[in-house]
Amino acid sequence: MTTKALLTAVADGLTVHDLGRELKVGMPQSPNHPAFWHALPRRHGDVVRADGGSAANDMITMGTHVGTHIDAFAHVSHDGRLLDGSDAVAAGRGGKFVELGAHTIAPMVRRGVLLDVPAALGTPDGCPPGYEITPDDLAATESRQDTEIRPGDVVLVRSGWGRLFDDPDPAVYQGKDSGVPGVGAPGATWLADRDVHAAGADTIAFERLAPGSGHSVLPAHRVLLVERGVYIIEALNLEGVAAAGVHEFLFVLSPLPLFGATGSPVRPLAVVGG
Amino acid sequence: MTTKALLTAVADGLTVHDLGRELKVGMPQSPNHPAFWHALPRRHGDVVRADGGSAANDMITMGTHVGTHIDAFAHVSHDGRLLDGSDAVAAGRGGKFVELGAHTIAPMVRRGVLLDVPAALGTPDGCPPGYEITPDDLAATESRQDTEIRPGDVVLVRSGWGRLFDDPDPAVYQGKDSGVPGVGAPGATWLADRDVHAAGADTIAFERLAPGSGHSVLPAHRVLLVERGVYIIEALNLEGVAAAGVHEFLFVLSPLPLFGATGSPVRPLAVVGG
Amino acid sequence: MTTKALLTAVADGLTVHDLGRELKVGMPQSPNHPAFWHALPRRHGDVVRADGGSAANDMITMGTHVGTHIDAFAHVSHDGRLLDGSDAVAAGRGGKFVELGAHTIAPMVRRGVLLDVPAALGTPDGCPPGYEITPDDLAATESRQDTEIRPGDVVLVRSGWGRLFDDPDPAVYQGKDSGVPGVGAPGATWLADRDVHAAGADTIAFERLAPGSGHSVLPAHRVLLVERGVYIIEALNLEGVAAAGVHEFLFVLSPLPLFGATGSPVRPLAVVGG
Amino acid sequence: MTTKALLTAVADGLTVHDLGRELKVGMPQSPNHPAFWHALPRRHGDVVRADGGSAANDMITMGTHVGTHIDAFAHVSHDGRLLDGSDAVAAGRGGKFVELGAHTIAPMVRRGVLLDVPAALGTPDGCPPGYEITPDDLAATESRQDTEIRPGDVVLVRSGWGRLFDDPDPAVYQGKDSGVPGVGAPGATWLADRDVHAAGADTIAFERLAPGSGHSVLPAHRVLLVERGVYIIEALNLEGVAAAGVHEFLFVLSPLPLFGATGSPVRPLAVVGG
Repeated sequence: MTTKALLTAVADGLTVHDLGRELKVGMPQSPNHPAFWHALPRRHGDVVRADGGSAANDMITMGTHVGTHIDAFAHVSHDGRLLDGSDAVAAGRGGKFVELGAHTIAPMVRRGVLLDVPAALGTPDGCPPGYEITPDDLAATESRQDTEIRPGDVVLVRSGWGRLFDDPDPAVYQGKDSGVPGVGAPGATWLADRDVHAAGADTIAFERLAPGSGHSVLPAHRVLLVERGVYIIEALNLEGVAAAGVHEFLFVLSPLPLFGATGSPVRPLAVVGG
Repeated sequence: MTTKALLTAVADGLTVHDLGRELKVGMPQSPNHPAFWHALPRRHGDVVRADGGSAANDMITMGTHVGTHIDAFAHVSHDGRLLDGSDAVAAGRGGKFVELGAHTIAPMVRRGVLLDVPAALGTPDGCPPGYEITPDDLAATESRQDTEIRPGDVVLVRSGWGRLFDDPDPAVYQGKDSGVPGVGAPGATWLADRDVHAAGADTIAFERLAPGSGHSVLPAHRVLLVERGVYIIEALNLEGVAAAGVHEFLFVLSPLPLFGATGSPVRPLAVVGG
Repeated sequence: MTTKALLTAVADGLTVHDLGRELKVGMPQSPNHPAFWHALPRRHGDVVRADGGSAANDMITMGTHVGTHIDAFAHVSHDGRLLDGSDAVAAGRGGKFVELGAHTIAPMVRRGVLLDVPAALGTPDGCPPGYEITPDDLAATESRQDTEIRPGDVVLVRSGWGRLFDDPDPAVYQGKDSGVPGVGAPGATWLADRDVHAAGADTIAFERLAPGSGHSVLPAHRVLLVERGVYIIEALNLEGVAAAGVHEFLFVLSPLPLFGATGSPVRPLAVVGG
Repeated sequence: MTTKALLTAVADGLTVHDLGRELKVGMPQSPNHPAFWHALPRRHGDVVRADGGSAANDMITMGTHVGTHIDAFAHVSHDGRLLDGSDAVAAGRGGKFVELGAHTIAPMVRRGVLLDVPAALGTPDGCPPGYEITPDDLAATESRQDTEIRPGDVVLVRSGWGRLFDDPDPAVYQGKDSGVPGVGAPGATWLADRDVHAAGADTIAFERLAPGSGHSVLPAHRVLLVERGVYIIEALNLEGVAAAGVHEFLFVLSPLPLFGATGSPVRPLAVVGG
């Protein structure tokens, strides 16, 4: 396709679904990561220039695994090894992951598929807390939607948990006591076997957390990040795109090129025609 | 265009030009904003779970106007007023700009035009320090490239200054003594008169800085952010796309939805066919 | 007293009681303030100099009202006015409190008195949750200990709540549901009427919090910081000094001179002879 | 000495010299450490409670080796070893130095001696840039002042460089081009041989920096922190105490107990009689 044809598509009108969460103080996040904080070191009126102009500025501090974010391959190791077989401790020496850091994640402009699992399971609001989404669930959803997954796709697995992100009590979305639905190692393997480029979910941990067990075991992270080279995207807002019945789209994700970091906050997009 | 056609374009192959700068400690930035810092609170091997898994995490602190970034309309006021005529001091009360903050910047999937001004001026490496890019320069570039600017476009003005971003001395790119090339109020007005959606440049301040004057007067910011409602994108990396001779593209920018903030770091993309 | 005599005292041996809390990630603090976080951007071995030397460094982010800390007079206003009668909004314009900021708190080398209220009340472990310490309680404690309060003293009011600081669940010390013991407006007035220089407690909020009411009303802060000019010190560790039966001491507190800030983390000392 | 006698001294009047520097955005510091930044996430008037009360809060981010600060023994290693002979890399695993971190620095209430070297050298304003203060210089100063150094003392070596801290150009105090005066390994050894508890200076690096060499070699740090167990205090303000002719005093330093950190910002005091 030529650029002209691509721009004609734009001119004809596209719909852009925003899959990112607002970053705001107090939002739910994993307590393992530095909390998101924001302040204005300068407000309007603080310093007014001779010409009447004034600027307001920000200061933020945060972990990179808060809000909607992507995991770099440097994020997780198993038995001391990263995805490329390198020594995980050595790779982080210097305080920067030169080889597998967030700056090495290429921007994604790819086919995206939403697997609306709760819709396929007949519980459209969401899977039950702590429910493990199985390969059969994934296959049934794929089939029901008629959205065959192809190599290189980005696949987003909706659990319905995302509807809890704005609950006044951050612990609800964290699912501390209840557990959180998601895939386990079998579901992750099913995705990796389809050669997907990245997999995402509408939960903090992407994968299923058993009630009360927290982040003590994360087998899907191991499968995807360490063994198979599939990026993980977390805390996505999939409610809007699911409600619109959109299951196939142009997926765009452009992570901040944070040199040597283990992840990046992102605001992914699902773009559809007309 | 249907989604299927859009995805066919993807399947046929697209080229994605990365217009963002790596975020790294020590990179050049305006000293008016909190410096970018990054550290790993946890490295691999620090905490190894029973199953052999280990995670590494980040902590970052920064201003939002460091690295490649976009200015929200809340960023600049003139004579005490923001773009929407609201009282700028009142708008920031509460420490968040609810109406014109960074979270209100819609993701951009639009036609983009690169105006390679130095190429048109016959000094392809870059404009001289402190050079003011005039409306005539912009028009000559537009004409030479045969890239008519249309309403809603995002226009990126290359000054060539971006080649200095990686200079070992951060002060060089800041242009403290030399001044920095860019448009002034007339150039900004020319852009706004074409109803562009956003305007960008490969410098920290977007607009021309006279030698030795620093950020004491910023008339182009006033024109675009306060008077005309055109977003400003700064510190872009335009060297690659210019070297490739790409002047027209699908422009994608998805700012972090930082609630109430005055801007956001971004990694914009220029997507072209084949 | 001459310096020589003072140093003879030191040579003869002094006991220094540490009244500060360790600053560590995850410690209890008010959720109204940026969380304490710490990371090592550089560890040993990351960069080894030719001579075999290596340095490790820190990065911290925090509010100033976390851990043991002192409130500057700029911290609280009432009906729009600060202690000096100035307009509170205007005083903070510029993002720094020039007149009443933390940098204006002179280091304290003063007589200190511990009022061990629970001991006087016959419940040495601590006052009940949400208990309001009355002027009568304070007077009874003063009398029982035979530690007459004098103008210029620093008075530390033990509630016993400090024993909960290290509870694995940070919410316990925060007292979200239970309330927290401490003085109310009458107790604060009693202290101010004795012309004390500063008043402290072993709780986050210094004053009594009613069960379930959080920080919605803080009358003792108003009395001390806005009306009477008495500094407030919070989250003190008074368990050790109380266990040692020390009620009178040389109190030393040297706040960080954070220019324009509303408070400072501190590590106060109670120094006693022999 | 009894506590009563100590408090009588206080009642009789003491003079407290502040040896700390104000912490403010833009102050000079080593670029190897995260810059100091401060903002007010909440100002007065942002949130006014029903009773008319309002609070203003801070957010700060910084390294621990900025402003006046103390180095923990964990800060420096040599040939892979810390002061206690432990493996430096292993000691920092977990991201916290449990054994030799800043939280292990006991508060200091000790005899302090100011060695006003420039006064003894006949150049009272300060030593020349890059000048190495020798053991002979230290001995001559000690003798001239008649302030015999005793075991356990804290010795502060004035170079006069501190008068540059408030220079509008932060690079001046950093001494990037000129070098900075201070002791070298011989001077550090001379101090350690007197069994001092801590040694301080009015420069960023404590020790002499040769012109243009920066922090590439730091032999005095090795001697004091790794070999001899003497704390180092940096960026002290010694101008006031020197101008007052005070060479002997009660030295008080109470570092923030930052768990696992490599240093702490401090505000040390020199207390003298009458």
